Amino acid sequence: MEYRFSSNVERLQSSAVRDILKLTQGKEIISFAGGLPAEELFPLDAVKEATERVFRTGGKNSLQYGLTEGFLPLREQLCQRMARKGMRAEPDEMIMTTGSQQAIDLITRVLMEPGDIVLVENPTYLASLQVFNLSGLRVVPVESDKDGMVISEAERLIKQHKPRLIYVVPTFGNPTGRVWSMERRKGLLELSHRHGVPILEDDPYGDIQFDEQANYSTLFSLDDRTNGGHVLYTSTFSKTVAPALRTGWAIGSRKVISMMAKAKQAADLHSSTLDQQTLDQLLRHFSLDDHIKVIRRAYGERMQQMQQLLASQGWSDVKWEQPKGGMFLWLELPEGLDAEALLRAAVKKNVAFVPGASFYAAEPQRNTARLNFTYTTGERMAAGISRFAEALNEFLARC
Amino acid sequence: MEYRFSSNVERLQSSAVRDILKLTQGKEIISFAGGLPAEELFPLDAVKEATERVFRTGGKNSLQYGLTEGFLPLREQLCQRMARKGMRAEPDEMIMTTGSQQAIDLITRVLMEPGDIVLVENPTYLASLQVFNLSGLRVVPVESDKDGMVISEAERLIKQHKPRLIYVVPTFGNPTGRVWSMERRKGLLELSHRHGVPILEDDPYGDIQFDEQANYSTLFSLDDRTNGGHVLYTSTFSKTVAPALRTGWAIGSRKVISMMAKAKQAADLHSSTLDQQTLDQLLRHFSLDDHIKVIRRAYGERMQQMQQLLASQGWSDVKWEQPKGGMFLWLELPEGLDAEALLRAAVKKNVAFVPGASFYAAEPQRNTARLNFTYTTGERMAAGISRFAEALNEFLARC
Repeated sequence: MEYRFSSNVERLQSSAVRDILKLTQGKEIISFAGGLPAEELFPLDAVKEATERVFRTGGKNSLQYGLTEGFLPLREQLCQRMARKGMRAEPDEMIMTTGSQQAIDLITRVLMEPGDIVLVENPTYLASLQVFNLSGLRVVPVESDKDGMVISEAERLIKQHKPRLIYVVPTFGNPTGRVWSMERRKGLLELSHRHGVPILEDDPYGDIQFDEQANYSTLFSLDDRTNGGHVLYTSTFSKTVAPALRTGWAIGSRKVISMMAKAKQAADLHSSTLDQQTLDQLLRHFSLDDHIKVIRRAYGERMQQMQQLLASQGWSDVKWEQPKGGMFLWLELPEGLDAEALLRAAVKKNVAFVPGASFYAAEPQRNTARLNFTYTTGERMAAGISRFAEALNEFLARC
Repeated sequence: MEYRFSSNVERLQSSAVRDILKLTQGKEIISFAGGLPAEELFPLDAVKEATERVFRTGGKNSLQYGLTEGFLPLREQLCQRMARKGMRAEPDEMIMTTGSQQAIDLITRVLMEPGDIVLVENPTYLASLQVFNLSGLRVVPVESDKDGMVISEAERLIKQHKPRLIYVVPTFGNPTGRVWSMERRKGLLELSHRHGVPILEDDPYGDIQFDEQANYSTLFSLDDRTNGGHVLYTSTFSKTVAPALRTGWAIGSRKVISMMAKAKQAADLHSSTLDQQTLDQLLRHFSLDDHIKVIRRAYGERMQQMQQLLASQGWSDVKWEQPKGGMFLWLELPEGLDAEALLRAAVKKNVAFVPGASFYAAEPQRNTARLNFTYTTGERMAAGISRFAEALNEFLARC
């Protein structure tokens, strides 16, 4: 039969990243496109041991239905971890989700009506744009620079549009890798309080800082949490342990968390409890903090390697800021160059990346590209950058 | 701060079942409320062995991000299982979901707009009502009897309301345990084709039949699938393997499945791949069909035990139909009795069930109750029914 689809899903573009991932599956393509963590660093033995402990200690009960809010012992441990970073929340102010992606979706579903406005950085995480589009929101980008959202612009747009949510990735943004300055962090919080607009702080990469000594305070930790606070915070184990376990969480106002639980009951009852129990055991018997140090060091080195490979090309009009953490390099290509056309040329040379346009809510800057430096390493990274350079050079010669 | 919530989520009632589950957690309450499978029958050793195989054969790659549509080898195996039941679908006509609950949510999100109408059985699965409410649908119940929806009523309401979806649980309905007759199955399909309204066939209990010889054809298998067919079918491993693995699936028109994948990208990227890979290995090295036979026999005996316990009370005005499968007995209590008031009395005696009112989209029949017979067994079941009887008898004496 001829199915009719909801107008929101009709409008929804499939994620360029995932479409490219599909395209490149099984082929001899070197991909800098996905946001894939380094597979060789996954703590496989620790995860394996953790599942064994789950079955040994939990027995058959470990396979039963669980609470919508998530496995309580895991929430208790996570609250302690959060507290060590200055983020104080009780277990009933936390909900476990299928990746932090689901937290973004649930927060959107409980707070927003179709047609409502959300402010975002420019550019911003493309899968959050998909969530907002799926819920029929109007997305308004706020001028942003290397220190974060420009606060005066945010205020102007708050007054103009009366948004119901501000979505930000203040630490190692995706795609830009940028870190907000303390001034901007406090500035946005102040706006949020003054105008009564909640902030969704998405922090998937916060742990992946290259400078062990750096200390980037989350908006959540800076917020005055009397009356539940203005910040809803979400993060995930996908980058620090493994994505397959699909375990993220959100913390915030007790009332919002309980509304999210109601929505989650309808959405999927609860997330995998095998995964949650595994992470609970992992946190008890494995030093996740030591493991995170290993990841930080490795990713920092890979970022340096990619930077050097790019720098050695001697392009005068290809620019990037050195990221302080996260998983991506954000390139500004020569003006007038359309990175989507470049991608088509690159794929013919068996290398892939993500054209920057997908990350803009409006008026994309087309001469931008996101390159992941965590998944592809060593000689393979060098080969990939060399193919990328070949494609770009031909392109530049032709233009 | 004072958060404002979307009107749909404000209206959403928390599931009575899960609220009672929460209330009874850790207490000495015998609960017939939850839809919990028998824990002692979970194939723990097989699941444990399957996870070991996943880590051994998949290595670190088993912890990486996966496809939104789900783990392909599992989809391939599942398509073969479906085919053996006369349900023919290709892997790209199937999507893996976080329980079949998520399939209901995704289908709703891609097919329906707020204000659209969905027809349901009366009574019907309460968590599907929650999904429909969360999406702001209008739910219209169709008169139903022991053979299923009354087709002439369905047709009248289709003409009157122009629904965009018909949601049914034709085999061992929840809460009633009813099985639709072949005539009604074909009747509804015919209506669906004539009026161009898709059917969502929810089949979580289809495998749990007490008569090994019985053969209940799904609507999906009876449908003419030229042009993708009119039936979207969903089922789950929650009742046959274990709920903790949170793995369900949907099959249907390739176009609908691909739209569901787009929505799922936004909703949570993908479901747990550890769970999906575990189930894939389980299907390869464990006879799920033999295991299902064990469950069928055990649940059939438990159903008989509960029936006998109730029958032995000698009530003349407490009625039920003997279920042919599934997990629930559906009681009709004396007229005028409000089962929610009875529940409050019952909980004081440390026994719980679900009042029937929650399962009605409109005008509830309040003198109804759903009792689960799979989770509580033997002397504990006898003690529970005896407490229930005590509460009911006091109630009857007082009324």
